[in-house]
Amino acid sequence: MSEIRYDPLQDRWVIIAPHRSERPSDFAAETGTEKTIPCPFCPGREHETPPELWAVREAGSRPDGPGWSVRVIPNRFPALNREKDYAESRNDILKCLNGYGAHEVIIESPRHGDGLADLSPSHLVAVLTAFRIRLRVLGQDPRLKYALIFKNYRDQAGASLAHPHSQLIATPVIPQSIRRKLEAARRHYRESGRCLVCSLLQAERGQEIRVIGEKSGFIALSPYAARFPFEIFIAPDVHTHDFADSTDRQLENLAEILQDMLQRLKRTADDPPYNLFLNTSPFAPHSPRGMNPDHGSATHGFHWHLEILPRQTAVAGFEWGSGFHINTSSPEQCARVLRRAHDP
Amino acid sequence: MSEIRYDPLQDRWVIIAPHRSERPSDFAAETGTEKTIPCPFCPGREHETPPELWAVREAGSRPDGPGWSVRVIPNRFPALNREKDYAESRNDILKCLNGYGAHEVIIESPRHGDGLADLSPSHLVAVLTAFRIRLRVLGQDPRLKYALIFKNYRDQAGASLAHPHSQLIATPVIPQSIRRKLEAARRHYRESGRCLVCSLLQAERGQEIRVIGEKSGFIALSPYAARFPFEIFIAPDVHTHDFADSTDRQLENLAEILQDMLQRLKRTADDPPYNLFLNTSPFAPHSPRGMNPDHGSATHGFHWHLEILPRQTAVAGFEWGSGFHINTSSPEQCARVLRRAHDP
Repeated sequence: MSEIRYDPLQDRWVIIAPHRSERPSDFAAETGTEKTIPCPFCPGREHETPPELWAVREAGSRPDGPGWSVRVIPNRFPALNREKDYAESRNDILKCLNGYGAHEVIIESPRHGDGLADLSPSHLVAVLTAFRIRLRVLGQDPRLKYALIFKNYRDQAGASLAHPHSQLIATPVIPQSIRRKLEAARRHYRESGRCLVCSLLQAERGQEIRVIGEKSGFIALSPYAARFPFEIFIAPDVHTHDFADSTDRQLENLAEILQDMLQRLKRTADDPPYNLFLNTSPFAPHSPRGMNPDHGSATHGFHWHLEILPRQTAVAGFEWGSGFHINTSSPEQCARVLRRAHDP
Repeated sequence: MSEIRYDPLQDRWVIIAPHRSERPSDFAAETGTEKTIPCPFCPGREHETPPELWAVREAGSRPDGPGWSVRVIPNRFPALNREKDYAESRNDILKCLNGYGAHEVIIESPRHGDGLADLSPSHLVAVLTAFRIRLRVLGQDPRLKYALIFKNYRDQAGASLAHPHSQLIATPVIPQSIRRKLEAARRHYRESGRCLVCSLLQAERGQEIRVIGEKSGFIALSPYAARFPFEIFIAPDVHTHDFADSTDRQLENLAEILQDMLQRLKRTADDPPYNLFLNTSPFAPHSPRGMNPDHGSATHGFHWHLEILPRQTAVAGFEWGSGFHINTSSPEQCARVLRRAHDP
């Protein structure tokens, strides 16, 4: 059983989940520590996963059988789950919540060798639609405060299975990075009356130095203070706080720019391992809906975005000990290279 | 030339240092990307490094020649340096400082194959003495606010050279992690009139569940909300804010518990790669010394400590996107295993 423990020194939560160390890996053969396993995400082995939560399926195909193109399942080795009641324990200084939450897997394709960059545009829209539906469903649980959708591409970026998939983890507390982003956004909103990301996008579009591409309502850029070489930031170009409110048309446009960026990254940086994540606003508080002042400022202040962090450089003691990062590349140079990476 | 850029979304600084990508690596042979190089930290090749800043030397030996046991040099590919003036530039939203600061290397032993865990006790004291003297010297520069001392052990933990060494990076801003720890410490001090680390150590010593060892004024424990398996936290057991104030006797006692912990880690977890860092209080502000209210609360609130983070598990999209960590081990179980790891 997991616990969500509070680190008072760093004002940060950590999930303690010893059972997760039992999960299988099909990269293990490379390290020689374990024998390979048949892929549990491939069609025909649907019975090896927990029952599906949502899928895009051929007409007439049955849940938990073949015939799907995108499939959402609970993680079999969840960091958090909803099978227990929400509970809290604390003494003066050591606080913990039990591991209430959700941990899901979005299997992005039935084809084991597919990359997200190679899916057809309509297939990628189906993946983004899965993200939207799961955020909408989990947002109904009043005990959950946030859901992070993320993807680990290749084992160097932390993937334990090669089959293309993303994950979702929903938590009963707002994670530290989101809290920090909300605080920065609120500060800027108080001072300027504007959304921080909107201000940032305006400054970047004026300069056209770090912008990689703009397409039908979305902008992709190399962040001014990027932590990693070829880091990419994608956001809607008008203020939008909640990804779950996206229309079908918006998801189509997002799929187009996301695929373009993943293709540019693949061609430019030799198909690097990467982490991708979606930072959307926290779940709206329930009852009385919309009356919570915190949520009010979240809607003004938060502007959803995707970040892609290529993982070809090590994170080491300086980063862990200070929170500073050293980026050994120039964001302007990376933007230039990615802009020039046209179709093959 | 480096820049220190501000990320307004995350309220965090990033060092942009493209020239750092040119630094050599003797682990490169393993990855097959580059040819190996002769080790620039070995005796006889002192001329390949910048002139030494400090060393422990045999009587009669000359600076920048053989005969040393610990040697401190400027990093040849510094992330920051003091050869330029401190300068700041900003527009409305994109702020940056030029890369003023210091980046030094503490070569821990003349023997290429030594590990920190294997040094003689007096040799380890000499390494800690190097840490103390460099913090004292750099603390005199009024433009520097903080110095982080850290060690990357093995290439999986981010080391680019195998020869045993630590590093020091001094910055003109207080790093985000330190700022966060100071804020948490001040909050606790306001509420309870006590130092946060002192309160935490008291709670842990009462329970004896996560304590790994105590020795002559120091305590080592497995943190309640550890992020990594076999993570170790070491601190003086009475309130001490500044490592640079340590007496020789305190460094001897610290060397003893540090070596004991590194030995236990080596025997228990198969000599894992790790990052080690020292979090001490920010440099005292200059003129009027001691009159700055911020520094006043730092001395009450901050309690220096060492953290050792073994790096056998991947950090992936969930961690990067949320600031949450998932630890797949139990800190209590890790403490038990480390307590039992007696001498071979």
